[in-house]
Amino acid sequence: MAVREKRVSVARSRESALRAAIAAPRIVIEVVAPIVLGGRFPAKGTVERATTVEATIFMDGHQELAAALLWKRSDQTRWQIEPMQSLGNDRWQAQFVPGKPGTYQYLIEAWLSPWLSFHEELRKKCEAGVVQPVEIEEGRLQIEAALTSARGRVGRLLQSVLDKSEGLAPDAACSLLLSDNLTSVMKSVEQRRFICRLERPLLVEVERRRAEFASWYELFPRSQTDRPDRHGTFDDVIARLPAIRAMGFDVLYLPPIHPIGLTHRKGRNNARVAIHDDPGSPYAIGAAEGGHTAVHPELGGIEGFRRLRAAVADVDMELALDFAIQCSPDHPWLTEHPEWFAWRPDGSIRYAENPPKKYEDIVNVEFYRGDEALPEVWTALRDVVEFWAKEGVSIFRVDNPHTKPLPFWQWLIADIRSRYPDTIFLSEAFTRPPMMYRLAQIGFNQSYTYFTWRNDKWELSSYLEELNRPPVSDFYRPNFFVNTPDINPWYLQTSGRAGFVIRAALAATLSGLWGVYSGFELCESAAVPGKEEYLDSEKYEIRPRDWNAPGNIIGEITRLNYLRRQYRCLQSHLGTRFHHVDNDQVIFFSRRAGPAEPLLLIAISLDPHHAQGCYLDIPLELFGQPDSATLEVHELIGGGRFLWHGRTQHWWFNPHEQPFAVWEARPLGEGTA
Amino acid sequence: MAVREKRVSVARSRESALRAAIAAPRIVIEVVAPIVLGGRFPAKGTVERATTVEATIFMDGHQELAAALLWKRSDQTRWQIEPMQSLGNDRWQAQFVPGKPGTYQYLIEAWLSPWLSFHEELRKKCEAGVVQPVEIEEGRLQIEAALTSARGRVGRLLQSVLDKSEGLAPDAACSLLLSDNLTSVMKSVEQRRFICRLERPLLVEVERRRAEFASWYELFPRSQTDRPDRHGTFDDVIARLPAIRAMGFDVLYLPPIHPIGLTHRKGRNNARVAIHDDPGSPYAIGAAEGGHTAVHPELGGIEGFRRLRAAVADVDMELALDFAIQCSPDHPWLTEHPEWFAWRPDGSIRYAENPPKKYEDIVNVEFYRGDEALPEVWTALRDVVEFWAKEGVSIFRVDNPHTKPLPFWQWLIADIRSRYPDTIFLSEAFTRPPMMYRLAQIGFNQSYTYFTWRNDKWELSSYLEELNRPPVSDFYRPNFFVNTPDINPWYLQTSGRAGFVIRAALAATLSGLWGVYSGFELCESAAVPGKEEYLDSEKYEIRPRDWNAPGNIIGEITRLNYLRRQYRCLQSHLGTRFHHVDNDQVIFFSRRAGPAEPLLLIAISLDPHHAQGCYLDIPLELFGQPDSATLEVHELIGGGRFLWHGRTQHWWFNPHEQPFAVWEARPLGEGTA
Repeated sequence: MAVREKRVSVARSRESALRAAIAAPRIVIEVVAPIVLGGRFPAKGTVERATTVEATIFMDGHQELAAALLWKRSDQTRWQIEPMQSLGNDRWQAQFVPGKPGTYQYLIEAWLSPWLSFHEELRKKCEAGVVQPVEIEEGRLQIEAALTSARGRVGRLLQSVLDKSEGLAPDAACSLLLSDNLTSVMKSVEQRRFICRLERPLLVEVERRRAEFASWYELFPRSQTDRPDRHGTFDDVIARLPAIRAMGFDVLYLPPIHPIGLTHRKGRNNARVAIHDDPGSPYAIGAAEGGHTAVHPELGGIEGFRRLRAAVADVDMELALDFAIQCSPDHPWLTEHPEWFAWRPDGSIRYAENPPKKYEDIVNVEFYRGDEALPEVWTALRDVVEFWAKEGVSIFRVDNPHTKPLPFWQWLIADIRSRYPDTIFLSEAFTRPPMMYRLAQIGFNQSYTYFTWRNDKWELSSYLEELNRPPVSDFYRPNFFVNTPDINPWYLQTSGRAGFVIRAALAATLSGLWGVYSGFELCESAAVPGKEEYLDSEKYEIRPRDWNAPGNIIGEITRLNYLRRQYRCLQSHLGTRFHHVDNDQVIFFSRRAGPAEPLLLIAISLDPHHAQGCYLDIPLELFGQPDSATLEVHELIGGGRFLWHGRTQHWWFNPHEQPFAVWEARPLGEGTA
Repeated sequence: MAVREKRVSVARSRESALRAAIAAPRIVIEVVAPIVLGGRFPAKGTVERATTVEATIFMDGHQELAAALLWKRSDQTRWQIEPMQSLGNDRWQAQFVPGKPGTYQYLIEAWLSPWLSFHEELRKKCEAGVVQPVEIEEGRLQIEAALTSARGRVGRLLQSVLDKSEGLAPDAACSLLLSDNLTSVMKSVEQRRFICRLERPLLVEVERRRAEFASWYELFPRSQTDRPDRHGTFDDVIARLPAIRAMGFDVLYLPPIHPIGLTHRKGRNNARVAIHDDPGSPYAIGAAEGGHTAVHPELGGIEGFRRLRAAVADVDMELALDFAIQCSPDHPWLTEHPEWFAWRPDGSIRYAENPPKKYEDIVNVEFYRGDEALPEVWTALRDVVEFWAKEGVSIFRVDNPHTKPLPFWQWLIADIRSRYPDTIFLSEAFTRPPMMYRLAQIGFNQSYTYFTWRNDKWELSSYLEELNRPPVSDFYRPNFFVNTPDINPWYLQTSGRAGFVIRAALAATLSGLWGVYSGFELCESAAVPGKEEYLDSEKYEIRPRDWNAPGNIIGEITRLNYLRRQYRCLQSHLGTRFHHVDNDQVIFFSRRAGPAEPLLLIAISLDPHHAQGCYLDIPLELFGQPDSATLEVHELIGGGRFLWHGRTQHWWFNPHEQPFAVWEARPLGEGTA
């Protein structure tokens, strides 16, 4: 390039930089919430729960801004508009309450308000008594400009202010120009300046209430029997339903219900070889009778399943199935589609393993061959889910999703939900945080958590705070399982009955979603020594139980689930705040669904062995009360009613009586607690 | 659309969703740092300082990943490559050290390593003694595949492993296949699977060292005189240079040096009317003699300015000018370009004001007329900066940038730096955090801070932690001014001499950039009652001083600046960690520039009135030492040398002797401290 040409080109690029700068928005809208990875994935919302939108909005100088939230369901055409309120420090907020499930969009608009800017300046000058006629004149000019486009009542109001203010002394004119009525009219008709809008709408995936609020009960149908040698059936489960419903559970979750392989079948307590009539692990899916769309014959086949599904619906519960992708070596896919599996140089199939452990009873399908995806595997798995969706199942607990490709899940969940929009997928991933969170970002509606291993006050409060705070709160719905067939927690192995009550109280009052694997209510905790595995695990054998065994905690669970239905604040993990208590063995927090909702104070002793006394620092500020206030308090577990004077209250927890307390409190005289 | 057509269209969109999913990257690269607003603006770097790049990288399953950092200066074509190291929990890190200023780009690549995955599995099985021949065979197949593309030494090595391992017993073959040498060769030649790369390069704006490390001294040239009635000149400033240099300052910053308006000129102590020969505020820029490109005649004109610039360079210092956009009513622009200003309905000009305060001696230019930018104003202001850049000025302290449009600054800084790449812009914004940070994001190289108002231990440590942590650490370079002509801090108004030493020690040891406005070294603090304004402020009058007045802290400042030159860890605010000390009046922190660099421990008493004793919790872990270790310690202010045994050390601070201490410490026997 000749020197002259280069100069011309540099000059041109400088000119275009200037053009871009003068066209750039003057107002900044940033740190928008809710947002997931910069808008790449939708945030999560729930019907009838307000979605709170916030943004940091500012501009150079000292003029006044205004902002609005625009929102709609994606299939609607008209935006609904909510004015945003300033929270101070450039932060703005508005809410919308989605009425139906679906994908929602929102936008934020901000602009310089000439009238508010004038109003604020005039107000200050008026207070200081330094208003000049020219200031009044400037206000009147704004009103005149607005009048050109105003009609009817608004036009008459503006004209009357103009008429009345003409020639008035500055101080008298001020009170006319500063009136609230005029302000609200001018805000609506004035010409908004430097108007600026988010570049593209952000998405909120709004789901039905059960995505956020549900109480899960997990059982092995084959164990619903009175004898280890009689295989339980779906009809036995139907017989158990009233008892489960009476405890207050509303989701019944079944581990895989498919035919179980014979090859390398595991024996009791995970023995390498099954003997006699060992039933094998239901996670070894597939046998001569079929694979993922077949039902284990001894459970009652597909007809039995349909009876159960209907019976569950009849008691206003819902069925959750397990979607576990692995196959037993006897799964029909191995012979129908050998190319879906990994074969080793010696011609053998690659079993699942976690070296040095081997799981010879299961093999995994391959999602890729080399770096190329195998779309027929992806669609076959989607068809499995769709089969059960057609059978009326709309909740799937997904086994180990973190060992399958993320793009697969993102596609599968979107594909199923496009036709079955009520479908809920629960991610059973126990792995490092980035993967746990990513699975939720790409579409899982609920997630297993680290709750099972959070026992100390600091662990629990910092974890709950993380889940309650953006970015996590925007996409992650925790389902707090107190135990699972794979997790017999250390804490419960030594805690005795009190520990079960404590863990149930924590899960049921800290999260909208909690789950119990059957046996928990009987305080079962016999373990394989040195492991968090159940001894004589149901994964490998049929285990009848005495559901009325003494020492059970059915009463406590029933009460907790009852309170969860009564109090909306217990129907989500959001809205949890921790408060000070002078004993590290006691955790103290409040739950509230919104400013006008009842406020629950909850304290739980974490010590299952010893009595613990403590002084609670009652957060009177949450009631808008001074430290000297009196609260009317109703304790919702034991049932006491009393008054609390002042901030500091003593409580005493006996682990063998009532290791936790739930107080509904309100300022004395504001209705009955 | 007919039903059949609709079905076809739905089927097509489902197909394309599947196609997109199977082509999507399997590996996630996220939470990349440094990054500014998702890559919208460049992060900041400095020559010769390592830029540390981190990312969270993970994939489904349990296979082993590897990752690399690719980086280059934007004008280079070839990427340089650094392998990234795993930090655990899916976090990866690498560094690059830019040698020259400029805009740098970086990318991250990650892939599944078949060899590392095989290696890890074999290692575990080998440890458990369960290796089968088929595993050895799988490793050999990988080597064979690599051999097809390997040449020379690498090819010979691979061939020899193949030869030696053939038919070997599994255990013997393991040690061959697990050798470090083979691992590093295989890592370099294997076929990387599922390779994934950041979508677009991220930018780092790398600047010269003085952008990060400088000690500023601010003075009013007109006050460099022995009599209030003799206007100081640039030549007087030249005479002062050796003393300023001797204190260790290397940037000399001058408030505006332009002709000062006469209309509405302010008198002493901001009096509404100037009397006699009041010199006026230099911030009222522009008079008959000229505007922003003219020099106040009494200072010595442009020739005097050039002599000063040369003299400053001769002592290895640098000049910083003030870029204050406002004009006095006498500025030539008012008559040349009346359309650049705001006129009121009564024909008067709109003065600057902050109601009810009025600044009648200054008027602001308008950047927009209605919603349309006035590009001639933007370019005129750019031309002002360019004028001084041509005069050899490469540091500008920008007055109140937050009251001018953000797109203007973004454009101006980029435009000037494209031709004068060494130019440094210091943002003098004191406003809410979002604007403070945004100005740094769009290009300001340094920023004023809230340091001046952070006095307590908690305030200081939480502010420094915020500045040391992403996202702020990625773009914001704090310049800690201990005072300015506009800020006579409350703390110093009552602290006496000890307070000046304390604030100097805090600023000089916590930030690579600090600044002193002259008079600070003399402990001047006479204030307008009830305000953080200096009494008899130099902004409105000429103030000669006795630079050798008793009680000055020139010795302390000199020592602090000396240590800043000696210790690289004091040349940035980054690398600051706070440590426990049992006294809330004492702040205790460590500074280190990198793992192999000397570690300084610094404690400063915040109490200028009383002696404070404390127990310091020495962070022996930072030295890689147990709690029982012995450190050799050299106190760098008072000069003592001694040994510290164990974690807890007592210290005593007398505010009137030495209210702070700087210890260089190292484990006993590791060289001399």
